Amino acid sequence: MRITVLAGGVGAARFLRGLKAEAPDADITVIGNTGDDITLFGLHVSPDLDTVMYTLGGGISEEQGWGRDSDTFTVLAELKAYGTGSGWSGPDWFNLGDKDFATHIVRTSMLAAGQSLSAATAALCQRWQPGVRLIPMTDDRTETHVVLAAEPGQATQPGQAAAPGQAGARRIVHFQEWWVRLHASVPAADIFVEGAAQARPAPGVLEAIAAADVILFPPSNPVVSIGAILAVPAIAEAVRAKTVVGVSPIIGGAPVRGMADACLAAIGVPATAQAVAAHYGPGLLNGWLVDEQDKAAVDAPELAGITVRALPLYMTSLATTATIARAALDLAQELRG
Amino acid sequence: MRITVLAGGVGAARFLRGLKAEAPDADITVIGNTGDDITLFGLHVSPDLDTVMYTLGGGISEEQGWGRDSDTFTVLAELKAYGTGSGWSGPDWFNLGDKDFATHIVRTSMLAAGQSLSAATAALCQRWQPGVRLIPMTDDRTETHVVLAAEPGQATQPGQAAAPGQAGARRIVHFQEWWVRLHASVPAADIFVEGAAQARPAPGVLEAIAAADVILFPPSNPVVSIGAILAVPAIAEAVRAKTVVGVSPIIGGAPVRGMADACLAAIGVPATAQAVAAHYGPGLLNGWLVDEQDKAAVDAPELAGITVRALPLYMTSLATTATIARAALDLAQELRG
Repeated sequence: MRITVLAGGVGAARFLRGLKAEAPDADITVIGNTGDDITLFGLHVSPDLDTVMYTLGGGISEEQGWGRDSDTFTVLAELKAYGTGSGWSGPDWFNLGDKDFATHIVRTSMLAAGQSLSAATAALCQRWQPGVRLIPMTDDRTETHVVLAAEPGQATQPGQAAAPGQAGARRIVHFQEWWVRLHASVPAADIFVEGAAQARPAPGVLEAIAAADVILFPPSNPVVSIGAILAVPAIAEAVRAKTVVGVSPIIGGAPVRGMADACLAAIGVPATAQAVAAHYGPGLLNGWLVDEQDKAAVDAPELAGITVRALPLYMTSLATTATIARAALDLAQELRG
Repeated sequence: MRITVLAGGVGAARFLRGLKAEAPDADITVIGNTGDDITLFGLHVSPDLDTVMYTLGGGISEEQGWGRDSDTFTVLAELKAYGTGSGWSGPDWFNLGDKDFATHIVRTSMLAAGQSLSAATAALCQRWQPGVRLIPMTDDRTETHVVLAAEPGQATQPGQAAAPGQAGARRIVHFQEWWVRLHASVPAADIFVEGAAQARPAPGVLEAIAAADVILFPPSNPVVSIGAILAVPAIAEAVRAKTVVGVSPIIGGAPVRGMADACLAAIGVPATAQAVAAHYGPGLLNGWLVDEQDKAAVDAPELAGITVRALPLYMTSLATTATIARAALDLAQELRG
C-alpha cells in the first residue's frame, strides 16, 4: 500500500508513528512543510522536517515534542553572550540545542555546497532512518509570513512604541517570529507563504502523490502546515486528483496543540473541525475524521461531498494513534470503493 | 608607546600576555595570521585569531593552549554521527568544542552577510575585550598549503595506498590537514600561502605598522605564522621600513612548542635560532632574542646586521614572559637610538 502524507511538525510526527505501527508494510512518503524554515545564526533550520525525522528516528525530545532528546544549550548560550556584548546580534527567542545545531550545520553546509534541500534531507535521514521517505515540499525557498494586525497608534510589537507616521502600519514578520517570539499574541491580519506560488515541488513529490493509494492529512495546522504545502500550485493540483482523508486538528472548538486557532482567525476560518473541512472543501478533501465531541459535523450540510467520521481523536498513546490511523485508512479504502 | 605584533597562535598569545603585563599602557595592535584559516562543516574557522582573542580575553583552555575553557563536544559528536551514517561527511580530525562552535557560527554568519573578516573579528572582540587591537592580516581569502613529499610508489597518506600511476605524485593539502590530521608525520616538500601574493592587507594593518615604535615577532612559527603574514607583499614591505625585534621560537635546536622544525625543513632552513634569524635576514629583522643555550648566535658572522641578545626564553610563567617582552622592548629602544 502506498500512502503519501502532507506533514507539519509535532502533530504530524505523532500521527506518523501511529500510522507506521498500524501499517508497517506500507510504503509511506511524507511531504514536509518548509514554509516554517528560517535562517538563524546563518544556519538553515527546517523545524517541521526535523520534527518528523527526529520523532520517527528516535531522536526527538519526548517532553517538548520538538528538538533533540537530552539536549544541552551551550552553543546558544555562547551566541547570546556574543549578541549581548558585541556588534553582532542574533535572535535570542528561538531555542536550539547543541545536538540540534549539528543538524542545521550539516544542512547548511550541504546547501552552501550547492546541494538541494531534498539532498540534505535525504543525507540527514540516512542517519535517522525514519522508516518513511521524507521529502521537503520544495527545494525552492519559501517562507511563511504573517501580517500583524495593528490598531491605529498601537505598538506592533510588545515593548516597542509605534514610530511617528507608522500608526496603524501593518508589519510583516516571519512566521517563527510571530509563533515563537510573540506566541501569536498579536492578532494576524493575514498569513501567506512567500515564494510558494513560484515554487516547484521537490523531486519525487508529484510522483509520490500520483502513485499514492491515499493522501493523508494528519492533524497538522491547516493554515501554516498543510496550507503551506498546498500553497505550491502543482502540489494542490496533484492532490485534488486523489483520494484525500484528513484528521481534524481541532477538537471541541480548540486546537489540540499549538495555536492553530490564531492562524485560522487570520484567514477568516472558525476554529471548528467542521469549518476546517469546509475550508479544504469537497474538491480537495474526500474523508474527514473528527472527534466524538464534534460529531455534529458528520451530517453537516456544509460538508456535502466530504465523508465525515467521528471517533476519539486525542493521540494519547501509540495505540490510540494507531487506531486513528486505521480509521483514516479504512475510510480511504471505503471512499476508493 | 605603540607596538605592533605579528602573531601566530599559542606562542604569540602567551607572549602577548607577558607584553601586556610589562607594558600595560602601550597601544598594542596584533596582526593575526589567517593562513591557517579553514572551512570546517561550512564554518569559517580562524584558529590563530581565536587563540589570541581567547587567551587575552580569558576564555582560553589553559590546558590545551587553544580552544575554549571547559568546553564540551556535543556538536562535534553529532556531526561525526552524521558523517558515519549519511551521505554527508565532514572532517573528523579537527576538534571543535561547543563554545568554540558559537564563535565560528558568528563569524560565518557575518561573512555570509557580506561583512569582512576584520569586522567579524572586531565584533567577536567586543565580547572578549582582549586589550589589544586584533586585526587579521587580510580580509582576502588566503590558505596555507603544504606539498607533501612522497617517495616513489609510497602512499602519500597513512592507510591509503598510492593509486596506480600516482606513484611519486605530489599531493597538496591544507596546512591544517598536514598539521592536525597528519601531525606533520609526512615530510613537506614545500609550504606556500595560496592567495597571499594577491592579498591586500586588512584595513588598519599598514597604518598600525607605519605608526608603530617597534614591530615585534613573538616566538611564533617563522614559516606558517609570521611567514604567512609576511607573504602578503605590502605587509612585508611595510615591516622592512621599521625597527623589528623578534623572539626565537627555536631553543637548543628544537621548537619550544609545535612542529616548527617540520615547517622549516620544508623551506630548507635548519631548526636553529640562528638559522631562523638568517632566514628573516638583516633587511627585515633588526634585533633577535635567543635562549642562553643558543648564545653562540650572538656573535655569529651570518647574523651581521642583526643585534642578538641571549636570555632565558622559556615562557614558564607570566613573570618570565614579561621579562622576555621587556628585553624585546629594551632592545628595540636601543636599536632606535
